[in-house]
Amino acid sequence: MSSTEGYGQNIWDIINNAIFNENHHEMVIVKDIDISSLCEHHLVPFTGKMHIGYVPRHRVIGLSKLPRIAEMFSRRLQVQERLTKEVADTIMEVLQPQGVAVVMESSHLCMVTRGVQKYSAVTITSCVLGCFETNDKTRNEFLTLVGSG
Amino acid sequence: MSSTEGYGQNIWDIINNAIFNENHHEMVIVKDIDISSLCEHHLVPFTGKMHIGYVPRHRVIGLSKLPRIAEMFSRRLQVQERLTKEVADTIMEVLQPQGVAVVMESSHLCMVTRGVQKYSAVTITSCVLGCFETNDKTRNEFLTLVGSG
Amino acid sequence: MSSTEGYGQNIWDIINNAIFNENHHEMVIVKDIDISSLCEHHLVPFTGKMHIGYVPRHRVIGLSKLPRIAEMFSRRLQVQERLTKEVADTIMEVLQPQGVAVVMESSHLCMVTRGVQKYSAVTITSCVLGCFETNDKTRNEFLTLVGSG
Amino acid sequence: MSSTEGYGQNIWDIINNAIFNENHHEMVIVKDIDISSLCEHHLVPFTGKMHIGYVPRHRVIGLSKLPRIAEMFSRRLQVQERLTKEVADTIMEVLQPQGVAVVMESSHLCMVTRGVQKYSAVTITSCVLGCFETNDKTRNEFLTLVGSG
Amino acid sequence: MSSTEGYGQNIWDIINNAIFNENHHEMVIVKDIDISSLCEHHLVPFTGKMHIGYVPRHRVIGLSKLPRIAEMFSRRLQVQERLTKEVADTIMEVLQPQGVAVVMESSHLCMVTRGVQKYSAVTITSCVLGCFETNDKTRNEFLTLVGSG
Amino acid sequence: MSSTEGYGQNIWDIINNAIFNENHHEMVIVKDIDISSLCEHHLVPFTGKMHIGYVPRHRVIGLSKLPRIAEMFSRRLQVQERLTKEVADTIMEVLQPQGVAVVMESSHLCMVTRGVQKYSAVTITSCVLGCFETNDKTRNEFLTLVGSG
Amino acid sequence: MSSTEGYGQNIWDIINNAIFNENHHEMVIVKDIDISSLCEHHLVPFTGKMHIGYVPRHRVIGLSKLPRIAEMFSRRLQVQERLTKEVADTIMEVLQPQGVAVVMESSHLCMVTRGVQKYSAVTITSCVLGCFETNDKTRNEFLTLVGSG
Amino acid sequence: MSSTEGYGQNIWDIINNAIFNENHHEMVIVKDIDISSLCEHHLVPFTGKMHIGYVPRHRVIGLSKLPRIAEMFSRRLQVQERLTKEVADTIMEVLQPQGVAVVMESSHLCMVTRGVQKYSAVTITSCVLGCFETNDKTRNEFLTLVGSG
Amino acid sequence: MSSTEGYGQNIWDIINNAIFNENHHEMVIVKDIDISSLCEHHLVPFTGKMHIGYVPRHRVIGLSKLPRIAEMFSRRLQVQERLTKEVADTIMEVLQPQGVAVVMESSHLCMVTRGVQKYSAVTITSCVLGCFETNDKTRNEFLTLVGSG
Amino acid sequence: MSSTEGYGQNIWDIINNAIFNENHHEMVIVKDIDISSLCEHHLVPFTGKMHIGYVPRHRVIGLSKLPRIAEMFSRRLQVQERLTKEVADTIMEVLQPQGVAVVMESSHLCMVTRGVQKYSAVTITSCVLGCFETNDKTRNEFLTLVGSG
Repeated sequence: MSSTEGYGQNIWDIINNAIFNENHHEMVIVKDIDISSLCEHHLVPFTGKMHIGYVPRHRVIGLSKLPRIAEMFSRRLQVQERLTKEVADTIMEVLQPQGVAVVMESSHLCMVTRGVQKYSAVTITSCVLGCFETNDKTRNEFLTLVGSG
Repeated sequence: MSSTEGYGQNIWDIINNAIFNENHHEMVIVKDIDISSLCEHHLVPFTGKMHIGYVPRHRVIGLSKLPRIAEMFSRRLQVQERLTKEVADTIMEVLQPQGVAVVMESSHLCMVTRGVQKYSAVTITSCVLGCFETNDKTRNEFLTLVGSG
Repeated sequence: MSSTEGYGQNIWDIINNAIFNENHHEMVIVKDIDISSLCEHHLVPFTGKMHIGYVPRHRVIGLSKLPRIAEMFSRRLQVQERLTKEVADTIMEVLQPQGVAVVMESSHLCMVTRGVQKYSAVTITSCVLGCFETNDKTRNEFLTLVGSG
Repeated sequence: MSSTEGYGQNIWDIINNAIFNENHHEMVIVKDIDISSLCEHHLVPFTGKMHIGYVPRHRVIGLSKLPRIAEMFSRRLQVQERLTKEVADTIMEVLQPQGVAVVMESSHLCMVTRGVQKYSAVTITSCVLGCFETNDKTRNEFLTLVGSG
Repeated sequence: MSSTEGYGQNIWDIINNAIFNENHHEMVIVKDIDISSLCEHHLVPFTGKMHIGYVPRHRVIGLSKLPRIAEMFSRRLQVQERLTKEVADTIMEVLQPQGVAVVMESSHLCMVTRGVQKYSAVTITSCVLGCFETNDKTRNEFLTLVGSG
Repeated sequence: MSSTEGYGQNIWDIINNAIFNENHHEMVIVKDIDISSLCEHHLVPFTGKMHIGYVPRHRVIGLSKLPRIAEMFSRRLQVQERLTKEVADTIMEVLQPQGVAVVMESSHLCMVTRGVQKYSAVTITSCVLGCFETNDKTRNEFLTLVGSG
Repeated sequence: MSSTEGYGQNIWDIINNAIFNENHHEMVIVKDIDISSLCEHHLVPFTGKMHIGYVPRHRVIGLSKLPRIAEMFSRRLQVQERLTKEVADTIMEVLQPQGVAVVMESSHLCMVTRGVQKYSAVTITSCVLGCFETNDKTRNEFLTLVGSG
Repeated sequence: MSSTEGYGQNIWDIINNAIFNENHHEMVIVKDIDISSLCEHHLVPFTGKMHIGYVPRHRVIGLSKLPRIAEMFSRRLQVQERLTKEVADTIMEVLQPQGVAVVMESSHLCMVTRGVQKYSAVTITSCVLGCFETNDKTRNEFLTLVGSG
Repeated sequence: MSSTEGYGQNIWDIINNAIFNENHHEMVIVKDIDISSLCEHHLVPFTGKMHIGYVPRHRVIGLSKLPRIAEMFSRRLQVQERLTKEVADTIMEVLQPQGVAVVMESSHLCMVTRGVQKYSAVTITSCVLGCFETNDKTRNEFLTLVGSG
Repeated sequence: MSSTEGYGQNIWDIINNAIFNENHHEMVIVKDIDISSLCEHHLVPFTGKMHIGYVPRHRVIGLSKLPRIAEMFSRRLQVQERLTKEVADTIMEVLQPQGVAVVMESSHLCMVTRGVQKYSAVTITSCVLGCFETNDKTRNEFLTLVGSG
C-alpha cells in the first residue's frame, strides 16, 4: 500500500457488510495496531500504535475491520491529531455505537531532524466521542484496559 | 480436546458439586487463564488469556472450576464478545454470586491475514454483571488487581 | 515447618509482647511475603505472595510479626479464601487497629492437573476490615502502594 | 548548542508561524523529551525527560515546536522548578489553549557530590495551568497517558 | 558516616540557608533516595528507598537538602514508622510548606533471620501532612508520580 | 491427567506414526514446555519448564509429540534428574536422531518446607546424547538458542 | 494475502531486479520478521518470527526483499523445518552469497489442542548454508547479533 | 536461625543419609538460593543469592540438601570468599562428585556505610573444583545455565 | 541538520584536532548512538542505533567525535551497509588504530509500506577492520560488551 | 567529596591495612559501583558504573576498599580511559594479585551539548592486567559474570 492509497478507498468497501446484530453492550477494544502515516507538513513519516475502543448499541463490527479503517486513513497525508479524529468519527458514523475512543502514540521523524534531535520523544493524541466523552468511568476503564497489557 | 468439544459438555458435570457454603464475601479472582478458541466467521483461531472475578453470596466455587467453565465455552465456534459474555452469564447462573466480571485479551489470526497484517494487535472484551456493573469501586478494584501482577 | 504445624501454634506465643505504643496513625504495609500452603480439598499445595496492611490505633506491632502470623495460618489445611480471612481477622483481633487489609496471589497446583492444564493461572483473594472496608480512599491507597513496586 | 544559548533565542523565531487553525479540542501530548540543563546554584548539570500536554482552543502548534520551546528554556541557568514553569507559561501565552501541563523528571549531579551520594535519586516537578489545574479528570488523564508507555 | 552519627547533626547546619523565595506552588518530589538505617529493636539494618514530596508555600528548599534530611534521621537507631514520620515532621517545621508526603519502602534483615525467612518481603510506611492529608487528589497525584517511573 | 497416569501410557501410542522422512539435518528445538511432576522421595510436586532439542537423521517427528513424550514421563513418580534422562533416552531410541538434548528448570516444593525455606531456588538438570555430547559447538548452539528468547 | 497465495508467486517477480553490485562483504541481518503460516499436517496456523542473515559475495539484495521471500514461502502449506530451509535455499540460489542463515521461532496452535495443552511452548528451527555451515565463528556471530536486541 | 547457629550444626546430620546411587552423570544445578550471612570484620550482614552445581560420580544428593549446606555455613561469622569456598569444599568431600562449582552474588551493608555509599554495588565470588576447574567447557556450561533464567 | 547536510562537511573540521597521544591500548566503545538516515533507493528514512569500538595505537580520539563522525555520514543518501562501512573506514583512516568495529541496528520504513508490512523487522549490519577482523577474541569481546548493557 | 578531592588522598590511608592473607585463589568481583567524575577536556561530568575483578595471589583486600580506590581516582580531573587504567594499575601495585580487570560504562554530558545531542550514548572502557590479559578464559569468565546480573 502506498502512502496515499487511502484516498482511493471507500469505507463501505472496507466494512463489506461485516456489521452484525449482537446482544452485546460492553466495551470492545483493539489495541496495539501498528500504524505508519505521512505528515502533511514535512512529508516525513510518523509511525506508532493506535488503540480503538467502542461500546456497541445493538450492533458489533467484525474485529479486523477496526484496524482496516485505521489503515485507510493512515494512507493519506495527515497530521496525527486529525488521523486520530477521522478514525473515531468514521466508526461513530458507520456503526452508531454508544461511543468511540481512539488513542494514538507515535514517533515523528521530524523530531529527529535539524535543530531538535529528540529521538525518544513520543506524541500521544486521543479522540473520545459519545459515552466516552460524557462518562468519566467509561473513559477511565478504556485507559486502564489499554494500559494494562 | 477438539475445537468443538465444548458443545457436548454439561455445565453441571463440570462443576461436579464443587460449590461450598463459606462465610466469605470478598472478591475472588482467577487471572491469566490460557484460552484458545475458533472464530465462527473465518474458522481461524484466536488465543489469549481470560481473567474471571466474582463476589460470593454465601457460596464459593472450587477455584479450578472457573478455568474449566472458560474452557468449555472456548471449545465451541465463537466470537470473542460472546465467549466473554457466556462465561460471565454461566457463573452468574450456577453460583448466583453478588456479581461476576470477565475480561479477555487475545490475538486473532484473522488480523494477520490478507490485507491487514497487524501482528501485534490485541483484542480486549469484557462483561460485568451484578455488583461489578452497578458499583464502580468494585469494578475498579477488579481491574486494579488484574493489572497489578 | 511441616504443612500442618500451624495447628499447634499459639498466636500470643508468636506475638511475644511485640506490640508497642507508638504515636503513629499511618498505613503500615508488609508486601511480597512468600507463602506456601496445602489445599484441604485436594491436598495439593498452593504457593504465592501475601500483602498485609493495617492502619494503627495507638499501637504498632513488630514488623516481623506480620509474616509470622501469615506463616502460622498457612501451615494448616486451607482454602485460599479462608487463609486470607484468618490472617486479617487475627490481626484485627490482637492489635485492634483502625483497619486491616490482606491480599494474596498464588498458583494452585490443582490447576495443572488432569483436565484443566492452566499453568499460568493466578488466584487472587482479599479481605478488608475496618477503615479499609468503609473508606474507599484507604483501600485504593493500599492497592496502589502494593502494586507500585 | 551551549548551556546558555537559550538566552539569545526568541520564542517567535522558534515557533515560526507553525500555529494552525484546526478543529481539534482533545489533549495533545509530547512525552519523553530529552532535556539537559545547568543548575544556577552549583553550575552542575541536571538531565532528564520532560512531558508536555495541552488541550487546544481552536489552534494547534506544530508538534516539533513543543520540544524546541523546552530546549530554549533548558539552555539557560535554571532551577528545575522554574524551567518546568517557564515552559508551561510560554505555551499558555503563545498558543492560548484551554490548558497546559508540564512534568519533568531528572537526575541532578549535585546529588552525587560531597556528602549526599544519592546516585539513584530522581527529582520530579510539574506545572499545570488552565483546565489541567481546574479539572481533576483532565489532569488524571494526562498523568495516566504519560505513565502508560 | 556511622549508624548513629545522625544524633550529632543539627538540622539548620544541614539546611545551611538553602531556603529560597520562589513563586512556585506546585508539587516537588525527590524519589528513590537510597536509605540505610538500624532497627532499634534488634540492632539489625534495614535498607531501601525513600520518596519525599512537598507543595511549597512561597519558599522552596535546595533539592539536595531533602535527601540530606532523610540521611540525618536514618543515621540514628530507628523503627521505619518513626523514621518516615520524623522526616515529614522536620520538613513541615523548617519549610512550612502547604504539605509534605514521605513514603519509604525497605527490606528488613530481621525478616530473614531465625523462624521467618521471608527474603522478598518489603515494608512500606508513609506519612502525609498538610494538604497531602486533607486533599485526596494531592495525595493521589503524589502516589501516581512516585509510581510512574 | 493424574500424577501417575504416565505409567499406563505406551510410547508408540503417543507417537502414533508421526515420524516422517524429511531431508532436514538441522537442529529442531521445542522450548518452554510446561511440566509438573511428583517427587518420589517426598511426594511433593515440582513444576517448571523443559527444553528439548534434537538433530535429525533422515527422519523428523511431529512437533507436538515432543511435549507429549515429556508429559508421559512427568506423570510418574520421579526425581528431576531421572525425568530429564528418560525423556532424552526415549527420543534417542524411537527416532534414532544424530543427538538429543534435554534441559529442565523447575521449582521444588520440598525447598519451601520445614527447615530450608528457599522460595526462589530453581533446580536445573540436563541430559545430552549423541552429537550434543560429542560436539561442543552443537551443545553451545542449543544452549544459546534456548536462552535467546 | 491468503494462506496459499504463495504458490502462485514467482521469486524473480518478487526480487524485481533489486540485486546490486556493492563492495560489501560483511554479514547483513534482518531479524524479527513476523511470519504466519499453515501447518500441512493439521491445517492449523503457526506464527512467530524469522531471522535471516547472509554474507554477500560482490552483490547485495534490497533489504525489503528478504522479508518478501520469507512471506512467499509462508503463504503455502508448510512444516516449520521445511519453511526455514526453503527460505535459506532460495536466497542461496538467487543471490549466491558466501552463506545464508535462517532461524525461526514460533508458536504452533496444534500444541494447545486436545491432549497436550502447552500454551507457552516455542519451536525453534534453523538452517545454515555456506560459510555459516563451515565456519563456527560466523555462525556464532550471527546467533549473538540476533540474540542481542 | 540465629547468625551463629551454623557452628553447632553437623554436616552429616544435615545430609541425613540423603545420598543415593543413581546412574546419572550430568550437571545438576540449584540456583538462586537466598543467603544471609554476617561479615566477620564489621559484624554487618551481607545478603544475596548462591548458585551451586555439581557433576555426579555414581551418587546424587537430595536436592534440598544443597541449600541446607549453604545455610549451615552462612550461619557463621564469614567473609564471602570463604563462605563460597567452604560450601564447595564440603560438597566435594561428602559427595565426592566429579566436580563442584559455587557462585555467590551479594550486597554488603558495609558498602553503604560511612565514606563509600555505594548502594548498588554487588560482590561476586566463585569457587570451582574438580572437572569445573580442569574443563573449561564444563565451567562455561555452568555459567551459561546459571545466567540463562 | 538536513538529511543531506553531511555532504558539505569535512572530516578534519569535525575532528578539530581532538586526537591525543595517550598510553592506552585497550578497546574503547561508544554504544547506542541514535542515528537517522535516508535510504537512497526509496528516499524513505531509516532510524536506529550505532555502536562504535576501536583499539588505540598510541593515539585516542575525543569521545564525542565518534558520534559526530557517524552523524556526518548519516546526513547523506545512504544504504545501511555503506553507512556502516564508511564510518569504520573513516575512523581507520584518520586515527590509524589497531582496529575498528561498527555495528548498526535500525528500522527501515520501506519495510512497513505496500506489500511487506513488517513493522517489527530490524536490520543489522556490521563492519570490522584491523585487529577486529583478524582476532576473533577481540571481536567477541566487542560483541559481548555492546550486548551487555 | 568535591570533584578534585581525590588529589589529596593517599592510597595507603584508604587501604588502611585491610589486606589479609587468605587461602583463596578464585576471582573476586565488585560490580555496579556508582562513579561520577569530571572530564578534564570540557570540565563536564561523566557518570556511570565501574566493575572491578581480581584473582588473588595469597592475599585478599577488604571488599569495600575496591570502591574506595575507584572513588579516589574519580575525584580528579579525568578522561574515562585513564580513570579505568589508574584503578587497575593501583590494585595491581598494592595487592600484587595474579591479575586485575576493570570495566567502566558511563554517560558523558559532553555528548548532549551543542552539535551532537546523543542522549542515549554510553561509553565503555576497560583495562585488563596479568592473568586477565594473558588468559582468554579468565577474561571471558569475568565478562560473563559481570554481564549476568
